[in-house]
Amino acid sequence: MKSDIPGLMSERGLDAIMIAGGGVNNPIMTYMTGPARLLRSFYAMKADGTSLLVHNPMERDEAAETGLPCSTFADFKLKDLTRQEQSEVRGEARMMGLILEKLGVKGKVGLYGNIEASRLLMQVEFLKQTMNGIEIALEGDRTIFDVARGTKNESEIEQMKDVGRRSCESLALVRDFLFSCKIERNRLVKSDGKPLKLGDLRSMMRRELIQRGLVESSGTIISMGRDSAVPHNFGNDEQIIEPGKTIVMDVFPGEIGGGYKFDITRTYCVGDVPEEVKKVYDDVLGAQELVLNSLKVDTPARIYQDQTCEFFESRGYRTIRQDDTLQEGYVHGTGHGIGLEVHEKPRLAGPETNSDEIVRGSVFTVEPGLYFPSRGIGVRIEDIVYARPEGKFEVLVDFPRELSPVWRA
Amino acid sequence: MKSDIPGLMSERGLDAIMIAGGGVNNPIMTYMTGPARLLRSFYAMKADGTSLLVHNPMERDEAAETGLPCSTFADFKLKDLTRQEQSEVRGEARMMGLILEKLGVKGKVGLYGNIEASRLLMQVEFLKQTMNGIEIALEGDRTIFDVARGTKNESEIEQMKDVGRRSCESLALVRDFLFSCKIERNRLVKSDGKPLKLGDLRSMMRRELIQRGLVESSGTIISMGRDSAVPHNFGNDEQIIEPGKTIVMDVFPGEIGGGYKFDITRTYCVGDVPEEVKKVYDDVLGAQELVLNSLKVDTPARIYQDQTCEFFESRGYRTIRQDDTLQEGYVHGTGHGIGLEVHEKPRLAGPETNSDEIVRGSVFTVEPGLYFPSRGIGVRIEDIVYARPEGKFEVLVDFPRELSPVWRA
Repeated sequence: MKSDIPGLMSERGLDAIMIAGGGVNNPIMTYMTGPARLLRSFYAMKADGTSLLVHNPMERDEAAETGLPCSTFADFKLKDLTRQEQSEVRGEARMMGLILEKLGVKGKVGLYGNIEASRLLMQVEFLKQTMNGIEIALEGDRTIFDVARGTKNESEIEQMKDVGRRSCESLALVRDFLFSCKIERNRLVKSDGKPLKLGDLRSMMRRELIQRGLVESSGTIISMGRDSAVPHNFGNDEQIIEPGKTIVMDVFPGEIGGGYKFDITRTYCVGDVPEEVKKVYDDVLGAQELVLNSLKVDTPARIYQDQTCEFFESRGYRTIRQDDTLQEGYVHGTGHGIGLEVHEKPRLAGPETNSDEIVRGSVFTVEPGLYFPSRGIGVRIEDIVYARPEGKFEVLVDFPRELSPVWRA
Repeated sequence: MKSDIPGLMSERGLDAIMIAGGGVNNPIMTYMTGPARLLRSFYAMKADGTSLLVHNPMERDEAAETGLPCSTFADFKLKDLTRQEQSEVRGEARMMGLILEKLGVKGKVGLYGNIEASRLLMQVEFLKQTMNGIEIALEGDRTIFDVARGTKNESEIEQMKDVGRRSCESLALVRDFLFSCKIERNRLVKSDGKPLKLGDLRSMMRRELIQRGLVESSGTIISMGRDSAVPHNFGNDEQIIEPGKTIVMDVFPGEIGGGYKFDITRTYCVGDVPEEVKKVYDDVLGAQELVLNSLKVDTPARIYQDQTCEFFESRGYRTIRQDDTLQEGYVHGTGHGIGLEVHEKPRLAGPETNSDEIVRGSVFTVEPGLYFPSRGIGVRIEDIVYARPEGKFEVLVDFPRELSPVWRA
């Protein structure tokens, strides 16, 4: 968690960290500064905790809300630097150097943040040429932020639960609307007699999420039949919903303005459920329950992928560990960490080089699925699990796992 | 525009370009592939137009929709590469190298995309050490994408106009709701007798935008009084709206799922308009009209910032060119390019090192403003202008510029 960062810095011999980029769509920045809608900014922190957030003067109110020590570009005379360098990119790089200098940084610096590659590469090249005694650190597969963000503290858990509750309320309303529609001539119709389309459900989901202060990270998967059997197919809005088909709803929104995400998937089937759908659903549910009941702290995350593959293989399904080009069967990983991004560490997936571990504080999805594009069947069931400080596991937000909910009168 | 890219590549001696990162919040990727909600992907293109989009197998439907030649990570045996390298980061870097090799790239490669800095730096280091004959190009302040994206083609203009029309519909509804509220005891009240808060307007705006398929890039500025005098203060939801105060509404949404943005600002004042507000408003409007009437193609973009500063200075205001720490007066630039990002080239702003030009195809905002936090007055008026192929300028979407709209009976 965040409080681990100073220790991680000293373990790795980092004298400072610097995060570049805006305050939006930049999870490492959000992690250190909280949600702050800055266009462009630099945050630097020394191992002793001294830090500075440098921002555009007209964003001073947003910056001040972080509670961090702040300076503006004007304080660092960015305009003069740009003029001297005859370049905005180099002027900004000079400012990055001055920020480190002001904090008294000497030695290894970790550089982070979602920023445009070509600009970053120029600035790093410039820093290397001009900064004496500063070295940009390369940390390998697990940066200090991968490690720190891999475990969540109580406040993060509360925020994620809150996003989760609001996500599940939205999902419940969309589910209930789906099952409230009548079946006429082998298709679902709304109360106005018009056919129900996937797009109707998607618009409703978006509206319900927004009303609860949530926004879709990149959309919501609401797919049916053959499309539901391609895991990241978002679904075709024009498709009219038919009984007996698998409908996958994978909802992964986050707080408006930046913050924690949630991720849940349910698969539904309206009307008479075909036997083969029922069988596939029960096997996916079985796999999920097996993993949920097997989880232990201080275990390698990838063993749960092996466990899921074994379970499915023993029931006659093909799995991705047998063939990584597989399209029919179990074709993805068992889960992924989640927090400020929908996909974080730990990854409950191969390959064997994946050294992520499940530890106290881990928060991750458990989401087995089975996919048969040739038969038009896709099933995935996904929940988020939290490894509590005492070592027990908790499903973050409980939500019914029914293929065909018993209708509430 | 996009069709300029091969020419720009050859001008700069680039044998290929490679874009890394997901398909969401990655405008350079979106520019080349269109909106595609890929989690992680690589797109490479040679100067002769040969290209390849490499993606996760489970995102094959999303990838195929781009119409581009596609391969999967499995096709490149990413798992084996990762195992051989004992590292996911290096395994992926090996794959980047193999993609270039497959396209027959030799020589200079431009690397782009919004990706996490620490991972990128490791991969570039690895590529430098392992790839013979490949050099990562550093292009300076204006990359080929800055240049290409700096002019828009007809299809981009149509998309931006469409986003603009929907943004303006939403703004009009929020404005009309604001002016429909009664004034009681020096505050605005809704029809239910409750006081009208900035948060009411913000929720309504969000709802109207979403219903039109638009999503806020990072929020909407709806600020009043002192907050409206700090340009990027988003405004306090709990603030009760009072007559006679300046209310700044700066709306900059984009297509849900990624795509073009719009950006418009209006300043409103309900009830009796104080003389000083009227004066400031008229001066800002005067500055905007001056620039709109002065625009010429093939001119440096920063001359319009000088023009705006001169105009304001001649009326006794202080400007940022006199003092870049200024907080009272004209404190920002005249405008910015817009497209797949809210802020692109050209920038109508200092410093004198800004070499951006207004040319045929440029699309940018003209948004002078005056800010007086000490007096609680902030005014900004912003519209988007398009430099048409024949050299004339067009306001992309017309929207009334009234401080206090004449009420429509």
